[in-house]
Amino acid sequence: MIYFDNAATTRPYDEVLRTYHEVATKIFGNPSSLHNLGSNATRILEASRKQVANLLGVAPSEIFFTSGGTESDNWALKGTAFEKEQYGKHIIVSAIEHPAVKESAKWLSEHGFAVDYAPVDSRGFVDVEALAKLIKSETILVSVMAVNNEIGSIQPISEISELLADKPTITFHVDAVQAIGKIPVSHYLTSRVDLASFSAHKFHGVRGVGILYKKEGKRISSLLTGGGQESDLRSTTENVAGIAASARALRMTLDKEALALPKIAKMKQVIQEALEEFDGVQLFTEEEGFAPNIITFGIRGVRGEVVVHAFEEHAIYISTTSACSSKAGKPAGTLIAMGVPQKEAQTAVRISLDDDNDMSQVEQFLTIFKHVYAKTQKVRR
Amino acid sequence: MIYFDNAATTRPYDEVLRTYHEVATKIFGNPSSLHNLGSNATRILEASRKQVANLLGVAPSEIFFTSGGTESDNWALKGTAFEKEQYGKHIIVSAIEHPAVKESAKWLSEHGFAVDYAPVDSRGFVDVEALAKLIKSETILVSVMAVNNEIGSIQPISEISELLADKPTITFHVDAVQAIGKIPVSHYLTSRVDLASFSAHKFHGVRGVGILYKKEGKRISSLLTGGGQESDLRSTTENVAGIAASARALRMTLDKEALALPKIAKMKQVIQEALEEFDGVQLFTEEEGFAPNIITFGIRGVRGEVVVHAFEEHAIYISTTSACSSKAGKPAGTLIAMGVPQKEAQTAVRISLDDDNDMSQVEQFLTIFKHVYAKTQKVRR
Ligand SMILES: Cc1ncc(COP(=O)(O)O)c(C=O)c1O
Ligand SMILES: Cc1ncc(COP(=O)(O)O)c(C=O)c1O
Repeated sequence: MIYFDNAATTRPYDEVLRTYHEVATKIFGNPSSLHNLGSNATRILEASRKQVANLLGVAPSEIFFTSGGTESDNWALKGTAFEKEQYGKHIIVSAIEHPAVKESAKWLSEHGFAVDYAPVDSRGFVDVEALAKLIKSETILVSVMAVNNEIGSIQPISEISELLADKPTITFHVDAVQAIGKIPVSHYLTSRVDLASFSAHKFHGVRGVGILYKKEGKRISSLLTGGGQESDLRSTTENVAGIAASARALRMTLDKEALALPKIAKMKQVIQEALEEFDGVQLFTEEEGFAPNIITFGIRGVRGEVVVHAFEEHAIYISTTSACSSKAGKPAGTLIAMGVPQKEAQTAVRISLDDDNDMSQVEQFLTIFKHVYAKTQKVRR
Repeated sequence: MIYFDNAATTRPYDEVLRTYHEVATKIFGNPSSLHNLGSNATRILEASRKQVANLLGVAPSEIFFTSGGTESDNWALKGTAFEKEQYGKHIIVSAIEHPAVKESAKWLSEHGFAVDYAPVDSRGFVDVEALAKLIKSETILVSVMAVNNEIGSIQPISEISELLADKPTITFHVDAVQAIGKIPVSHYLTSRVDLASFSAHKFHGVRGVGILYKKEGKRISSLLTGGGQESDLRSTTENVAGIAASARALRMTLDKEALALPKIAKMKQVIQEALEEFDGVQLFTEEEGFAPNIITFGIRGVRGEVVVHAFEEHAIYISTTSACSSKAGKPAGTLIAMGVPQKEAQTAVRISLDDDNDMSQVEQFLTIFKHVYAKTQKVRR
């Protein structure tokens, strides 16, 4: 099996599951309990928070654990909206956000808030000048992702940070779910960023654990109210085992980065260069300005699903551009926003690489690709 | 070690963690993925949903997985409020709800909704007549828990179901987090109940998995918007391993019920009867009308924390009345709502039993209790 769908989800590392099991069996107390089973759990929880904070170069008090990237995004958008509604009800998100952001913005637009969508250029980068023009005195939030999940385009977070430098009342949220472990932290956690979302299952952690970075002093209304966990901002009995396991996954991922990223980039380069040789292949990704792990392409005239299933027969797992939209059969929102015609957007498939992959898998993929390509060309004639 | 704090959290069963590990390693695909790693994950997810539905006697399409009891409660309250705000903005919750409900109601009261609190009598039961008087034409939601987490009083869900029988526009939510596995399902899932909350870590499942039962056809706004998982009502990449493990935990718990509950009730009876013998002990729980697993008492004049720590020295783990309020040092909200004076409420400690416990532990507890009690009486003199 060749798993080239790492942007959809990753295999949890064995060490990560070992930590999970150890904590779940030995430290099962409720951190809120007064007795020492509770304080042992609190100790693991806070050690995990500190580890995550250190890895991201922020303070432990700025790290909040959630149930995933979706909750982090929902909390960032809705929490900011409800916290700041008396100051203004205008929100800007980019046109290529993940549904966790886009649908949250849509939900807010149905509940009294106004939303504008910042456009992207034909290569998939947010147009910062156009974004600037959308800002009004009532704007309370700008949300732009760090790395797009469908094509891997790295968004101009530094430029947007500069744009917002003299607008301190606007909360700046960055969905960094696809960025962490793929590009340097400094790229998406600039000093201007107020909120940033992460999801553990994208970096070999466990499902159901997310992180929200919240800059010290930045105010946000709770999304999950209750017993007062997470500094009284996000309640529920803490998933200590999942959090400890995911902190370990983050450390392992970032520790490997220096070796893994060039290796992944090399694999991408080989695939991109090989695909460019085929007349009927359209590449949506580039090397410069894009994450090293994602290659998105289409075989002209062939729907993405057909290509995914053709590879599946050879136990090679790739994806239409995003796991979420794939079942709904919707074409890739990012490509549509880039102005790619619907018919071309429907051909798109995504390869997402990981350090777990290697060059021999790339070669196997390319061998199979020739088959698949030839077959589709025959069908079309 | 004697763990008598099972209402705070339970030890995940070994079999449950085995299921977790097996699914996390072998079925790690994203259920939204088009390829067969995705469909394998979907199959496990839907099998788990069916198992939970069967155990609760409802349809699989009525079961939604969440991140815990808190999210289920927040979703029930806020989702109903935002779904139905055009019909009315009045909500009723009982005065003894868990903070996950109470704080959600409070949050709503700060965002345009009116909240009334249904009082309880001196024994800790919601006063259904008083509740009836709070209902207005604008009432859209009534939320009453099935079993109170601080004293285990079983609330009159059937009577409230009758009260609401001819008021179909009112959504009836039941927080059943402390009820499942402790009292029969029929008691808290009457045909009138529209929404019910559950949390896996309370029945030997894993942390970070909750359930919301939503009656077919009942409408609710999403709390976590995004990729459209859970019938487009609750988004995030599904925690398949945690869900499968928790479905197994529920089956194990309910399979054991017929033997476990009489055993637990017997342990409670022995403890209650022994404690009654002490002059300085005030019992807040009874046998009739209360869950079989919870005993709440106080040693007059001695703060609950002192008693918890005294037992902790002997590796016996009990709790002040709820894990959530314990660290904040707040007195038990339920006892205050019952009219217990603050000074007495502060003495309260909770023992919460489980099938994992046995009569020899009860005997050890009672032996240590004599010590602890004698010591406190000396100090007071
Ligand atoms: C950019 C982006 N944001 C948010 C999410 C949502 O993360 P999760 O599935 O953990 O809720 C994903 C992945 O699904 C993503 O790729
Ligand atoms: C009655 C009740 N409701 C809700 C909750 C919240 O559950 P969780 O901690 O899983 O969010 C709890 C326990 O903490 C509870 O006892």
